Amino acid sequence: MSVTIEAIREAREHIKGVVNRTPIVADAQLSASLGASIHLKAENLQKSGSFKIRGAYNKISRLSDSDKERGVIAASAGNHAQGVAQAATMVGAASTIVLPEFAPLTKINATRRLGGNVVLYGRSFDEAVAYSKELCAERELTYVHAFDDEAIIAGQGSIGIEISEDLPNATVIVVPIGGGGVIAGTAIAAKALMPNVRVIGVQTEAVNSVKPSLAAGEPLEAIAAPTIADGIAVKRPGELTLPIIRELVDEIVLVSEDEIAKGIFHCVQNAKLVVEGAGAAGVAALLAGKIDLRPNDTVAAVLCGGNIDANLLARVLEQVLVTQGRYVMLSVLVPDRPGNLASMLDTVAACGANVIEVFHRRAMWLTPLGHVGIEILLEVRDREHSLEVESRLRAAGFNVECESKDAAA
Amino acid sequence: MSVTIEAIREAREHIKGVVNRTPIVADAQLSASLGASIHLKAENLQKSGSFKIRGAYNKISRLSDSDKERGVIAASAGNHAQGVAQAATMVGAASTIVLPEFAPLTKINATRRLGGNVVLYGRSFDEAVAYSKELCAERELTYVHAFDDEAIIAGQGSIGIEISEDLPNATVIVVPIGGGGVIAGTAIAAKALMPNVRVIGVQTEAVNSVKPSLAAGEPLEAIAAPTIADGIAVKRPGELTLPIIRELVDEIVLVSEDEIAKGIFHCVQNAKLVVEGAGAAGVAALLAGKIDLRPNDTVAAVLCGGNIDANLLARVLEQVLVTQGRYVMLSVLVPDRPGNLASMLDTVAACGANVIEVFHRRAMWLTPLGHVGIEILLEVRDREHSLEVESRLRAAGFNVECESKDAAA
Repeated sequence: MSVTIEAIREAREHIKGVVNRTPIVADAQLSASLGASIHLKAENLQKSGSFKIRGAYNKISRLSDSDKERGVIAASAGNHAQGVAQAATMVGAASTIVLPEFAPLTKINATRRLGGNVVLYGRSFDEAVAYSKELCAERELTYVHAFDDEAIIAGQGSIGIEISEDLPNATVIVVPIGGGGVIAGTAIAAKALMPNVRVIGVQTEAVNSVKPSLAAGEPLEAIAAPTIADGIAVKRPGELTLPIIRELVDEIVLVSEDEIAKGIFHCVQNAKLVVEGAGAAGVAALLAGKIDLRPNDTVAAVLCGGNIDANLLARVLEQVLVTQGRYVMLSVLVPDRPGNLASMLDTVAACGANVIEVFHRRAMWLTPLGHVGIEILLEVRDREHSLEVESRLRAAGFNVECESKDAAA
Repeated sequence: MSVTIEAIREAREHIKGVVNRTPIVADAQLSASLGASIHLKAENLQKSGSFKIRGAYNKISRLSDSDKERGVIAASAGNHAQGVAQAATMVGAASTIVLPEFAPLTKINATRRLGGNVVLYGRSFDEAVAYSKELCAERELTYVHAFDDEAIIAGQGSIGIEISEDLPNATVIVVPIGGGGVIAGTAIAAKALMPNVRVIGVQTEAVNSVKPSLAAGEPLEAIAAPTIADGIAVKRPGELTLPIIRELVDEIVLVSEDEIAKGIFHCVQNAKLVVEGAGAAGVAALLAGKIDLRPNDTVAAVLCGGNIDANLLARVLEQVLVTQGRYVMLSVLVPDRPGNLASMLDTVAACGANVIEVFHRRAMWLTPLGHVGIEILLEVRDREHSLEVESRLRAAGFNVECESKDAAA
């Protein structure tokens, strides 16, 4: 094994007091619904919003004074950028972070705010990486890889030590996988300290790189479909991380985009923790029943990051509410006479449903002459409430159809 | 003083291991923007989603076996319901919780899930309270008041002890006030253990009960306007809590609904913590600059609860994004010929703005003949980006007006 438990212990002492010792929070609702004891390792509350600072600080703080003075460089469109920038700033090193030209402004601003010198280059992440390597050679900087580096893996492994201390009876640890740095480090530490623990890795179906790579015996490049779990959308696992995953990770499971959205929703609504898509992948796998649990299992799911834009978060919450039947769209046929729209809306109001939007469609297909089609978007308590609204409208003489896609939630 | 530091110490030992010792999390961004050291006491991560279980458990677990057997009763439309239900279930006592008839289904379900026997009664909270007192007398139950009870105040005071242990150099503690239970207990503990700490209470402008009551020297009933901080919408402070507030609380500040919304947004986007309106009140006061801080101040803001419905949270996030200029509504005049709508939208797409909704208005006021009015709702990076979209549309020959209300964010 390239990285030892001793190296992780040493990294843990090295970063102590500098990075947050994040809390491990019991998830009462998930425990009740799965019949096992589920806990969340809240790395979303870590400095820079994800676990990345653990490895970055372990790497950068050990550089020689002259290396620090020349500075470090990394390519990233996400959490690694912020972790490197903050760690470098903490030890007084300059950091250059290359992001693709179309990186979201929030990521650019966050990286700058943490002291990173942002360079925008390339129309894809791969072009940004290639340019970062050029700049690195040209300016004699130290390259900070996001996962394929022993000091980085050892730093992330401190998560495994903290889990062994705070949840010593853990039997299962669930970790999202992008390039494999955090699961590699965590698995080395956890299996050294809790020999019977199972370590389960979670990837998004959109970028499924580890299983084929394990099958092939070498890192393969996966096709990358769009995903809300951009933090684990890494096309190729590392040369260092893949052998560790092969040796120590018991199982890899895949989650869909819908499952990830439900994972984010669960963390927000029930655990009161904000997680990004990648951060929710482990919870998504648990919620979807994709991880076999025994009744006496004690599970730690690593919430690896919380850097999600508020607008994306709002959309995810609303989308899941739709699948839960909390929003419903009704088409109502209303006689085209003054007062009829008002009377239809009165009926809706009497049910206690909240009107979000009204579309008044004179030209709706198949509307009989003398009627108008009204579409109303309602917020309801649940599916039963929505059926109640429909039946009251029918009882009041309106022709109603429900347009919401039915979802087996 | 009716409640002593000894009673709080004893309560703290009594509830240890039963309720969560919630983490205190550094808020790097608020610290940077305020120039002081800001920390958040994350009671949103408490069992039942708020601090209420501290007092409820301290009270209910001390009842005699026969009192436990007969059970407890409380009236609440919110967090107290869940705290009492969970605490009672933990010690094997029955709990009856009276909620007003129109209580949100999520609150009803949460209370039931925690083992509470829910009774729906009355068209207002006051009617529910009156009925709970009737039932209490009739069935010889033990009444659990939400704040005006020494055992409840002592239980909530454990928060003050935890702050003194985890942030011993705190100079300011900020606590939202509803009935005053948590600020009373916290102030007694904090001032006993950290004599120089300032304790600042925060109320919503919508239900401003404490200042007038302090001025009058007795609890007065305030007018209650609607508020997103329903957890602190208590019309009258307690007989026990008001004198403690008068003696130990250094200042009361008020926050507006907009400020509370920004507080929720800040906690979610920057601190990665989900808080309800009441839970965000302290952060809202800090963000709004309503609390005078010195550069060497170390502040603990109590996030008292996280029980916010996902749909309300989504709406709050979107509303704040609008005031930040992240959503913008443009009215565009487009010649009524095939291809012109598509070409207008191409121009928008070339700017990288995301189209959320399109309204095609043939009958828009003042539309010249031969043109149609198109309203587009866009998601943009910031105000500059929105101006860029407008100017590119004008350069392409379209007549554009921005409809978004301008907000000094």
